[in-house]
Amino acid sequence: MSLSGVGVSPGRVSGPRVVVAADLPEPSSAPVPDALDVEAGKIGPAAAAVAAELSDRARSVSGDARSVLETTAAMASDPALIASAERLVRERSLPAPRAVWEAAGEFMTALRAAGGYMAERATDVADVRDRIVASLLGLAPPGVPELRSPSVLVARDLAPADTAGLDPDLVLALVTEEGGPTSHTAILARALGIPAVVACAGVLACDAPGLTVDGSAGEVTASDGVVRASARKSRPEWDGVGRLADGHRVKLLANVGSPADAHAAIAAGAEGIGLFRTEFCYLSAEEEPTEAAQREAYAAVLAPFAGRPVVVRTLDAGSDKPLAFLPMGAEPNPALGVRGLRIAFDRPELLDRQLSAITAAAADTGVELSVMAPMVATAAEAAWFAARARAAGIGRVGVMIEIPAAALCAEEILAEVDFVSLGTNDLAQYVFAADRQLGAVASLNDPHQKALLRLVGMVAAAGVEVGKPVGVCGEAAADPSLAPVLVGAGVTSLSMNAVALAGVGAALREVDLEACRALAP
Amino acid sequence: MSLSGVGVSPGRVSGPRVVVAADLPEPSSAPVPDALDVEAGKIGPAAAAVAAELSDRARSVSGDARSVLETTAAMASDPALIASAERLVRERSLPAPRAVWEAAGEFMTALRAAGGYMAERATDVADVRDRIVASLLGLAPPGVPELRSPSVLVARDLAPADTAGLDPDLVLALVTEEGGPTSHTAILARALGIPAVVACAGVLACDAPGLTVDGSAGEVTASDGVVRASARKSRPEWDGVGRLADGHRVKLLANVGSPADAHAAIAAGAEGIGLFRTEFCYLSAEEEPTEAAQREAYAAVLAPFAGRPVVVRTLDAGSDKPLAFLPMGAEPNPALGVRGLRIAFDRPELLDRQLSAITAAAADTGVELSVMAPMVATAAEAAWFAARARAAGIGRVGVMIEIPAAALCAEEILAEVDFVSLGTNDLAQYVFAADRQLGAVASLNDPHQKALLRLVGMVAAAGVEVGKPVGVCGEAAADPSLAPVLVGAGVTSLSMNAVALAGVGAALREVDLEACRALAP
Repeated sequence: MSLSGVGVSPGRVSGPRVVVAADLPEPSSAPVPDALDVEAGKIGPAAAAVAAELSDRARSVSGDARSVLETTAAMASDPALIASAERLVRERSLPAPRAVWEAAGEFMTALRAAGGYMAERATDVADVRDRIVASLLGLAPPGVPELRSPSVLVARDLAPADTAGLDPDLVLALVTEEGGPTSHTAILARALGIPAVVACAGVLACDAPGLTVDGSAGEVTASDGVVRASARKSRPEWDGVGRLADGHRVKLLANVGSPADAHAAIAAGAEGIGLFRTEFCYLSAEEEPTEAAQREAYAAVLAPFAGRPVVVRTLDAGSDKPLAFLPMGAEPNPALGVRGLRIAFDRPELLDRQLSAITAAAADTGVELSVMAPMVATAAEAAWFAARARAAGIGRVGVMIEIPAAALCAEEILAEVDFVSLGTNDLAQYVFAADRQLGAVASLNDPHQKALLRLVGMVAAAGVEVGKPVGVCGEAAADPSLAPVLVGAGVTSLSMNAVALAGVGAALREVDLEACRALAP
Repeated sequence: MSLSGVGVSPGRVSGPRVVVAADLPEPSSAPVPDALDVEAGKIGPAAAAVAAELSDRARSVSGDARSVLETTAAMASDPALIASAERLVRERSLPAPRAVWEAAGEFMTALRAAGGYMAERATDVADVRDRIVASLLGLAPPGVPELRSPSVLVARDLAPADTAGLDPDLVLALVTEEGGPTSHTAILARALGIPAVVACAGVLACDAPGLTVDGSAGEVTASDGVVRASARKSRPEWDGVGRLADGHRVKLLANVGSPADAHAAIAAGAEGIGLFRTEFCYLSAEEEPTEAAQREAYAAVLAPFAGRPVVVRTLDAGSDKPLAFLPMGAEPNPALGVRGLRIAFDRPELLDRQLSAITAAAADTGVELSVMAPMVATAAEAAWFAARARAAGIGRVGVMIEIPAAALCAEEILAEVDFVSLGTNDLAQYVFAADRQLGAVASLNDPHQKALLRLVGMVAAAGVEVGKPVGVCGEAAADPSLAPVLVGAGVTSLSMNAVALAGVGAALREVDLEACRALAP
């Protein structure tokens, strides 16, 4: 068996295949015809097996991870949950998996209603529910399985939540069925220096004991599961100051979207925040968060960066990232619809309240504030946003350049604002007319492509011409092989996930400005 | 009441409001509890009323239109249809509208199975069905109502089929709730020289007797319904040769998608075909049409253009224009998915069969053949297509430039092919990240925007540099105010709907090349 995909991080390695299981289907509620006691009797042993497995894992780790696993194990053997599920089988003839699903659902509702610490436990109940249901259905529990030895991880696609608890020393390579060169999987792999292939159609269906992954050629072949790795790249060293070999400064900043991200960014040496995604404050809210609530939420992210530069991006929602309190209606192509700043044109008061909260949070925390808007297409839109931001007392105002039209009119846009930041992920999606989420067109979404780099070069040149900063906050900034190209084009700062900072910082130290310019598109 | 939208064709006019009714909902099949005879008894009178109305209209017109209306009236009073529907009410307790729906459905299936002339009559049965069902439900029949006096036409959006039978002398203005500056409504209005406003949210809900439409300001206000029009622009005169005042030649070609389009294009003076959309041959087919069937279908379109240049575009389908015989799966953003040439990468034999059929049809009809591919993003894709087309014996091979990446790499693409054709509708959609079909972002999809014209200018300059033709086949080509700008940028041919040819031809006669160049972006 040999499969091809898009190689996104070089290197060649073989090892056992470990699959990240897909989300569980909602279990059927078709009534059980008879033998209800037999059906109910399946629940206790399944829960006990899950609890035992979790306790077992708890003993193999220490610290926070251990206490989390012990708590989850205790929940899995909670007699109240089991009794409630058994009753649902007997009284409503539900199959055992459905009974566990509904009993856990009742618990989760009650926990959420209690609020605070209790509400946060609802997620743990969902995890326990999924494990028991999976056990009853004979399926693997969803999510990244615990790795006990070095493995090749295979998934449909990996979200940041999937990889948060991943031990990078046990991941030999990453292969995904979907995703593209700007996917989370690709950037994580490059940051960790492990081989990776994305958009590899057919890899989930492959059942070989192991895989050989060639991240340069984009090839994946079946293997016997024995670990054979070329020498693992050593983790890069970086001192936390972005500069080239000749001392030319390039600010290296972090993309963050939560207090945890901000702490990770500080720990990784970020000089500031180049992209603060404020969506976390809105996306799960049932009503628009009050100004006071926003102020507090933003301050929690900004606090670690007191005295440093931060760029806050205003709300980037839309019909693909819907807001519960702002029904948007379905759109045939949400990526080409009313999203980002476009939402504010009909609801400027929503933007004004956010701008006030941002200004207050910046004052509370003592950061050097800049604010920018997402999804700006024209100079007129940039001017509209800048006027409102300046009216809110914000001194440094910019916009994202992530729509080709904005890049083509960078000069006119820079006349309206103080800086711009290139969002290369969305920009690539529009430049190539290729959905970022769609594996079938992933090979187009490659930030090394000439067409994209030409457009980036036009924006950077416009910035150099008028002496205003041009940053990059898309995943292109996190690619050590592209960072010198971007700097050579005239980009003045690079913002990325914390995990990528050291690799990019180290790569820049190896080149001087003249070498970077020679690489420019 | 005052509404704003996007003005797409200038002028100011007032007149009675006539609404194009929306498609009928599929009638409910919830069973009628009793009084089945009463329910069945509603069908005959409704059918008779529809037949009478159609006969009445038939008497007011002449020629083909009269015989079409007389045939339709006869169908509406067809005793077999009425009896069949009445039986469905009595035997299956269906409500009368549902019974008519299903009885007509059976007739349509039988007609389609008979093939040929009979199959074409299925559309007429559907029209009769909709009229009787609408009458039973108390709704207006769908489609453009018959205009008896000059009126302002209001619609959600107008498709070419809606406007085919429209008498332009009775349309004072067009207003649509959705649509954009590149919509069919906009181009029709500009071609006819009547005021139009698109993306006018709320206009369908307005129930004033009349509307005042300002197509320059994009404003629509309620009026008393009395006709007040500024002097109507006279229809442009054009002799069928595309040239500027100084004699500089610009080929004026037609966009066609059926034999009827081709005949209309010849009648309107088209010098050739600049865009032959071959989808018509595939979209309604349950299996891939055979090479022989394709050859015959293409020849029927090409025949009127014997001895003239024609550009045939290969299949442009995708998950938004699905093929029954090629299930594609749903995509989150079909406009950014597997469409156009991308479908052929995994199914090259589909393309090869089409290329053979095109070559044969061109030989059958004696046209000067060129072939081009839709949705090309890179020079590598262009080279892939060109190799296959040349292997099929096609001498002149090109690609559409409708993805920003292709425009940014026009030089590299022109090295692989003999010509390019700019599809400005899709190009604008991607350049502005604004869905062409979505009213809410319609103001961005304006082909006059600087960002789009800059990109068009880059492609035209690349063509001038290497001495290869660059055409435009998007709606920008059909705009008399843009045509000189495009010619000034270096565009060598303009292809448009037949209805727009005279207006563009006349506009070009009024300027010389120097004036055009002064307009270039």
